[in-house]
Amino acid sequence: MFANTPEPPYWAVIFSSQRTTGDGGGDDGYGDMAARMVQLAGEQPGFLGAESARDADGFGITVSYWASEQAIAAWKADAEHRLAQQQGFARWYAGLALRVAQVARAKVWQRPERGDAAGQG
Amino acid sequence: MFANTPEPPYWAVIFSSQRTTGDGGGDDGYGDMAARMVQLAGEQPGFLGAESARDADGFGITVSYWASEQAIAAWKADAEHRLAQQQGFARWYAGLALRVAQVARAKVWQRPERGDAAGQG
Repeated sequence: MFANTPEPPYWAVIFSSQRTTGDGGGDDGYGDMAARMVQLAGEQPGFLGAESARDADGFGITVSYWASEQAIAAWKADAEHRLAQQQGFARWYAGLALRVAQVARAKVWQRPERGDAAGQG
Repeated sequence: MFANTPEPPYWAVIFSSQRTTGDGGGDDGYGDMAARMVQLAGEQPGFLGAESARDADGFGITVSYWASEQAIAAWKADAEHRLAQQQGFARWYAGLALRVAQVARAKVWQRPERGDAAGQG
């Protein structure tokens, strides 16, 4: 679930969103779209990984990591092209925030697995 | 739930974590600690806001926003001092990632409230 990012500097796209609840309480195609967007990101040059969480109230944060601003720009152009083919992207969301940031410093810690002295299990 | 951040540039602390499940399945004081950390951040000079989500599997992302690197450093020193008074901080987590990044660009969109022409309800 943690992105296996290299030493900084690299770039992050922080995408925060509040999901709408479908009129029928259903998913309304959101899951398919979100899975496709993740798949497309993974196929882009310069994609380093992503982390994502969404709580029970429908507020979610996805952070994707990129080697360069150019990689983000190329992915943005591709994603917008794909999304333009979707009907009514905005219906899935009550609100969105998108922030592009350059990661300057990073620390990662994982609990050692039992019996794994290397601690990178 | 969205942080009301100013125009970039500003700074972001991206904190990703995987919660342990308490031995008894309980919270084990985690909620109190997390709430206290958020309160302390809010009292720090240069704190701009925060966004947070944790999914049903215990993977969470909290992004806090700051006016400067100096503000982050001051908060870090204070938080570490407070956490040093806690017993066994690591027990709450199976893994952590902490990234400090400078936000270069941001876009925010919120669905207009019904009957609210200004769209900032």
